[in-house]
Amino acid sequence: MVEIPDAVKPWFDAPEFAVIATTLPSGRPHQAVVWVARDGDDLLVSTVKGRRKHLNLEADPRCSVVVYPKDNPYSYVEVRGTAEVEENGARELIDRLCQEYTGNERYTADDGTDNERIILRIHPEKVVTLIR
Amino acid sequence: MVEIPDAVKPWFDAPEFAVIATTLPSGRPHQAVVWVARDGDDLLVSTVKGRRKHLNLEADPRCSVVVYPKDNPYSYVEVRGTAEVEENGARELIDRLCQEYTGNERYTADDGTDNERIILRIHPEKVVTLIR
Repeated sequence: MVEIPDAVKPWFDAPEFAVIATTLPSGRPHQAVVWVARDGDDLLVSTVKGRRKHLNLEADPRCSVVVYPKDNPYSYVEVRGTAEVEENGARELIDRLCQEYTGNERYTADDGTDNERIILRIHPEKVVTLIR
Repeated sequence: MVEIPDAVKPWFDAPEFAVIATTLPSGRPHQAVVWVARDGDDLLVSTVKGRRKHLNLEADPRCSVVVYPKDNPYSYVEVRGTAEVEENGARELIDRLCQEYTGNERYTADDGTDNERIILRIHPEKVVTLIR
């Protein structure tokens, strides 16, 4: 089990944006900008069932998450890990992220509907930090 | 040939940070935070010969570059493309990026040495934009 270093935990606990990389069926890397939370040493990302990154991770659960603090992008952390899909608590997670990032109590999708939310729980296997 | 949409060109032309994803020999995604420039519809990233992303791209030139404006990270662009390695002009590129991002005239590596710089020239093959 690989731990998230204390020095970068504040970045995951603050509303800093993350970029998640997964692998497309063609073998090509795919990236998306996401909100991220931390649960101990796991990272939590919310997505919608059937969205590209969910499909990619069902086929190959290996992924990478990068976060850098917006006031100092010369420092960053890359967490390489394996994602597990969870359904329980998915509504609570997206509302929690929404509160942290926007201040709004409850998340509403852009199209006004409540999509079927899932959690990508990422277990770190390698952590690369660059702090300067 | 895929074009960079006009709406996102300013992000590549401003000193916005990018995240580049490549593929490790294991097939796992790898990410790094980088400076990026634009040359027409190509993206230019500077790196050092032998660094992880260079080695990854020599084995599999397919990559993804994400940029979002720091004052509105809800909008972003993902450029998926193929990287070509160039040596000519590599010193000029890193100095140009350094001027744009830091205001300093000439780039000096963290260790005080001048490493052997190369250019990753990325030809876009698919561009995904999310503007909100």
